[in-house]
Amino acid sequence: MLHAAFLRSPYAHARIEAIDTRAARALAGVHAVYTAADIAPHLKLPRIPVGMPSGAIRHVLDPEVLASREVCHVGEAVAMVVAQDRATAEDAARLIDVDYAPLAAVVDPVAGLDPGAPRARLDCADNLVASFRVGYGDCGRAFTDAPVALRENFLLHKGGGHSMEGRGVLAQPDPASDGIVVFDSTQMPHRAKALLVAMLGLPEHRVRVVAPDVGGGFGPKFVFYPEEVAVPLAARLLGRPVRWLEDRWEHFVATTQERDQIWDVEIAADQDGRLRGIRGTLVHDHGAYTPYGIALPSNSATNLIGPYVLPAYDLDVSLVITNKVPATPTRGAGRPQGTFVMERLLDRVAEKLGLDRGDIRRRNMIAPDQMPYVTGVKTRDGGTMTYDSGDYPACMATALETAGWGGFRTRQAEARKAGRHIGIGLANYVEGTGRGPFEAAGVRVGPSGRIVISTGATAQGQGVATVLAQICADQLGVDLSAIDVIAGDTAASPLGLGAFASRQAATAGSAVLSASHIVREKILAAASSRLEVAPADLTLRDGRVEVVGAPGSGVTIADLARDLQGLPGYALPGGLAPGLAAEAVFEPPAITYCNGTHVVEVEVDPETGAVRLLRWIVVHDCGRLLNPTLVEGQIRGGVAHGIGQALYEWMRYDDTGQPTTTTYADYLLPGAAEVPRIEIAHLESPSPQNPLGVKGAGESGTIPAAAAIAAAVEDALAPFGVRVTQLPITPRRLLAQLPIVSEDLGAVLTPGRQAAEP
Amino acid sequence: MLHAAFLRSPYAHARIEAIDTRAARALAGVHAVYTAADIAPHLKLPRIPVGMPSGAIRHVLDPEVLASREVCHVGEAVAMVVAQDRATAEDAARLIDVDYAPLAAVVDPVAGLDPGAPRARLDCADNLVASFRVGYGDCGRAFTDAPVALRENFLLHKGGGHSMEGRGVLAQPDPASDGIVVFDSTQMPHRAKALLVAMLGLPEHRVRVVAPDVGGGFGPKFVFYPEEVAVPLAARLLGRPVRWLEDRWEHFVATTQERDQIWDVEIAADQDGRLRGIRGTLVHDHGAYTPYGIALPSNSATNLIGPYVLPAYDLDVSLVITNKVPATPTRGAGRPQGTFVMERLLDRVAEKLGLDRGDIRRRNMIAPDQMPYVTGVKTRDGGTMTYDSGDYPACMATALETAGWGGFRTRQAEARKAGRHIGIGLANYVEGTGRGPFEAAGVRVGPSGRIVISTGATAQGQGVATVLAQICADQLGVDLSAIDVIAGDTAASPLGLGAFASRQAATAGSAVLSASHIVREKILAAASSRLEVAPADLTLRDGRVEVVGAPGSGVTIADLARDLQGLPGYALPGGLAPGLAAEAVFEPPAITYCNGTHVVEVEVDPETGAVRLLRWIVVHDCGRLLNPTLVEGQIRGGVAHGIGQALYEWMRYDDTGQPTTTTYADYLLPGAAEVPRIEIAHLESPSPQNPLGVKGAGESGTIPAAAAIAAAVEDALAPFGVRVTQLPITPRRLLAQLPIVSEDLGAVLTPGRQAAEP
Repeated sequence: MLHAAFLRSPYAHARIEAIDTRAARALAGVHAVYTAADIAPHLKLPRIPVGMPSGAIRHVLDPEVLASREVCHVGEAVAMVVAQDRATAEDAARLIDVDYAPLAAVVDPVAGLDPGAPRARLDCADNLVASFRVGYGDCGRAFTDAPVALRENFLLHKGGGHSMEGRGVLAQPDPASDGIVVFDSTQMPHRAKALLVAMLGLPEHRVRVVAPDVGGGFGPKFVFYPEEVAVPLAARLLGRPVRWLEDRWEHFVATTQERDQIWDVEIAADQDGRLRGIRGTLVHDHGAYTPYGIALPSNSATNLIGPYVLPAYDLDVSLVITNKVPATPTRGAGRPQGTFVMERLLDRVAEKLGLDRGDIRRRNMIAPDQMPYVTGVKTRDGGTMTYDSGDYPACMATALETAGWGGFRTRQAEARKAGRHIGIGLANYVEGTGRGPFEAAGVRVGPSGRIVISTGATAQGQGVATVLAQICADQLGVDLSAIDVIAGDTAASPLGLGAFASRQAATAGSAVLSASHIVREKILAAASSRLEVAPADLTLRDGRVEVVGAPGSGVTIADLARDLQGLPGYALPGGLAPGLAAEAVFEPPAITYCNGTHVVEVEVDPETGAVRLLRWIVVHDCGRLLNPTLVEGQIRGGVAHGIGQALYEWMRYDDTGQPTTTTYADYLLPGAAEVPRIEIAHLESPSPQNPLGVKGAGESGTIPAAAAIAAAVEDALAPFGVRVTQLPITPRRLLAQLPIVSEDLGAVLTPGRQAAEP
Repeated sequence: MLHAAFLRSPYAHARIEAIDTRAARALAGVHAVYTAADIAPHLKLPRIPVGMPSGAIRHVLDPEVLASREVCHVGEAVAMVVAQDRATAEDAARLIDVDYAPLAAVVDPVAGLDPGAPRARLDCADNLVASFRVGYGDCGRAFTDAPVALRENFLLHKGGGHSMEGRGVLAQPDPASDGIVVFDSTQMPHRAKALLVAMLGLPEHRVRVVAPDVGGGFGPKFVFYPEEVAVPLAARLLGRPVRWLEDRWEHFVATTQERDQIWDVEIAADQDGRLRGIRGTLVHDHGAYTPYGIALPSNSATNLIGPYVLPAYDLDVSLVITNKVPATPTRGAGRPQGTFVMERLLDRVAEKLGLDRGDIRRRNMIAPDQMPYVTGVKTRDGGTMTYDSGDYPACMATALETAGWGGFRTRQAEARKAGRHIGIGLANYVEGTGRGPFEAAGVRVGPSGRIVISTGATAQGQGVATVLAQICADQLGVDLSAIDVIAGDTAASPLGLGAFASRQAATAGSAVLSASHIVREKILAAASSRLEVAPADLTLRDGRVEVVGAPGSGVTIADLARDLQGLPGYALPGGLAPGLAAEAVFEPPAITYCNGTHVVEVEVDPETGAVRLLRWIVVHDCGRLLNPTLVEGQIRGGVAHGIGQALYEWMRYDDTGQPTTTTYADYLLPGAAEVPRIEIAHLESPSPQNPLGVKGAGESGTIPAAAAIAAAVEDALAPFGVRVTQLPITPRRLLAQLPIVSEDLGAVLTPGRQAAEP
């Protein structure tokens, strides 16, 4: 096996004038050095067609595998070295001499929209990659003579995936088929395969992509990256396995992240707090390329509505090219931003009207008898976003009751007397999950007695294999341990999509249910034929088909599988078709919407700006619960991710587009000490969109976290009039609004600092 | 990669007292030495369960992977060495010290039936492995007062497969799945996988068997051999790829062959030559193990009937264990023997009645209006052997006319005047082909534009890939070059049987037709949706769906495949299910019977006994012809195989069971010079048993070859009263019956020699 390393751009924006690889090639242990010019003859397409289509996109910004003439962000790959080991490959990469002509970089997306701004990409006449409006109803009328109207600006920062393991690609030539097997840390192995087919010009059956346990996905591993073409191409050219593993620096500069959103929004309400409308603008920092289309800011915009009746809505969304790594979804996929804006606006209206924050939400909530609830928002496919089921008021009521919301003011007053600044915050959310168009699964019983589920779904620690095995085990009357799940291997499942949009239990789960049911019926038919007992008198238990009332009787499903394997020249028993197996595809008729309420209690130290999380209550409704332990694990992980985004994660760039936070000393993530015990309760409103009645749960924990923390922090610091409109909520940002100046820390804590930190 | 060699028994029958492998293990370059005791802990079953079930079998004689206590034929594997290269492995094998206690061997199957005979296997009380009767009607009545009745003995020898390439196994551990990939020269990869699963105790999804082009199959590669377990097991134990390639000596002593049959039969006929009945006994040399059940002599027995109305039939069949390599089918699978007996008997009756050999056949032939013709013979599944279609008289008439049968006596007389002994022979046959229970195939159109057919059928040079691609290309309107066929890979096709019984065009072909038709319909539906044109107005041509009358219009099927691949979150077009693909299984309702007539003209040199083939005419009916070139290639190869069996191939053993013909200097095969130009004409009687109307053709050329040659040789040597009742027809056997003694060769050519050569 050989090892690859990439030479990456040190400039946010530059023209490549020349590349000299001679010294690198001459280094002992180097097998190959590739530039864009070297690989061009072997690629069927000059750029990776990663973009997802949308009429709103004005510039298609597909990346190159290796930059040929222009680099558009620090970290963009310019050359690849393949060597006997990684150290040699890195040493050789440093010997490559690239002659760059630096260009002006676009770092601030709002400034990038200015007609006089420099161009972030030489091939685009301006920096507006896409713009669109989300809305419905008559906002003009809603705001006319509105009893309450207010405006607010939000600067929302969202970090990266920061999976436990970075990305990695191991490509192994398969001499028997003149093909390539690619072990790839992707959430989307079938999409990776399709793009490899397109880029390398190989037929489908000579490309196999396997996504094993990938050490965490969280969104960035949805994206198909240049390394995923470069490494397989090198393996083919060299006839050797080639591996590349992302190092942590590369994860900061070459793996996508969610970037800043700047919201400028107004809200109008009646005197009793009932919403009339919301309008405004959203500027979205899109990064340098378009590997995901417009889904991310689109999710932000549509998710704002949440569980509320919002009569009118009008948001103008602009996606701006900047010289940073591309922005693509991480857990929550833009929804935390929409939820943050809505929940903050509701808190503002409540404050203005002197309403309890729970009351204003209760007054605006969609009632269970309004389900299915048709919002005014159009979906990607031209339909209308429709919530399928849920009891939002019950969900919030349970959370508030658990949190002791009604008694909090008393507790808060007592704490303040004791010099402690505690606060409570509340946020509701709705999340569209279980997205299509389909997922595929096969179930096969082998004569060995083992059962294999093969699926296009992928496993990255969500517990997909466990949930799918559970569904199958229930149908076939076998122990979980009898089932193996092959997820994310294009050779095992020719059809598939993969992991995104909290979709796999709903889609792959339903496909497994369907395939398992067919297999169950066939087992009963085969056993009926062999035992000469009516299917109605048979039952499945412990891997056997037993005659009802006679434990240990009957036949094992392994023996039935052997019968149906087929013996040369002998008829199959019972007139049955061969194989104790079935394949199924589930195509969800529509998206299914989970929902929940988080209530957070915090304590803030006004001298240091430190926020301590005292209590975290989640009431969550993801439809039928298949495995509470897994759902709760997902929620806890999601909350931790949300805590990071609310309080710690901040990917910063200087004015030239140089990233300044590329280690975990500079870029903070919550550790175990920062995550409180999370109290979880469930409601179960079955979804009508799939036979299991399930909804997604993988991202939901993240969505309301920052909104709830912001509300709690404001509540804790209410005596000081602190406003939280920016993420992350750093101590410095809080201290800048606090009138108390620590003598120890001196002048840096004046309010004037706030403007200096966008 | 490491290399394996096997230590094989030098005795036909012996007890293993002890094995000392120390010296072998100590040799430099040796990685492992395995005996039965070494591998026993790693095997789930002590013997390979290769037998195919039959109630007639008295002793189940499954082989061990490595012999533990008893060796039953020369060549049986006793130990395996794995080393850095084959030469080292062989050197080490020679260093293994096996202490054998020789036992009496059974070599002659007739003698083996004697109650006082030694036992060929210590674990069997006698040597009769199975016995059964084939027959129907009242033979007693048929022979009572029969105007003509005669009896004849036949000793029929049939050799081996002698494929261009011997067997081979390359096993490669797959660390990613803790599984094993086995490249195996098998006709039956799915059966090999099932047996590996059973023997190694691995679940099905961790075993992949790939049967690439295997250098010729011909029957022996149907069998699953000990090496096919031993090599994968070694690869797993050593964690390295291990390869074993059969050498030519091993092909003679460790690969199955067809062995001797001894027929003692009587025929009864009316005065006009119409058959009344046939009865007698068949003793079949079964070899030392039972890797195939009773199918081979059963085929011989049932095939005797051929295209004739035979009112009564009674054959007593005995299978005898001998200390030779097991007997399993080679091309024709026992049918050449049955055909030989029937055609020889018809010639005898014709001679006795003074009838033309064509006339007697014509009088007994099944007429086309009798189709489907129900014979009296029961099939394996309890049905009755029923010929599906065919015009046997027309087939023979065409052959005789082409051969100038009517004018041959004149030509023969002229030749004799010139001192040349020419003769003509005729043989008809019927062959059951296209056997079930099923075959599977998938057809998948990729966005690359390439189409993949995956099938459980296997390719060994028969042209399976071409025929399957043709069937698909016709349906999808694409060029053959757009199609790749993956045959014989258990990973590509989870269901499958493989190559036997001339079955693949009928079974896999029909499965491909079915799958292709489904894909065609889906292509039209997808194109109709995309183009907004009714399917009836669309046509498929050159990989496009065109609007009728507008060449170049429309859309490529590659683009339709891309549409149906599914894009995350976007609905599939036209309400269609994902994937431009279909899988199908074809289960033939019954066997389909091909037939034909061969007419052979020979010249025999009475001084040397040399037989020269002057002319060979085949009229063949395998139903609808999918690809005449391939059918004719198969027939030519089959005839060559039959010529070898008739004139050259003779696997001989001495009285102790030592094989004496284990090189191609001792064992003769026909070369190009021995095979005449073969003139082929076709009739096409479509089979009603499959939608293509096809029948098998792969073995048919072999079936009547020996019978036709025997008849022609007898005819050529009629003036000398020579009788041909034994195969092969060696010069020595002919000379023994010829009154002319060559002065050069002396006393060895006296008639008395005949008895000495059984």
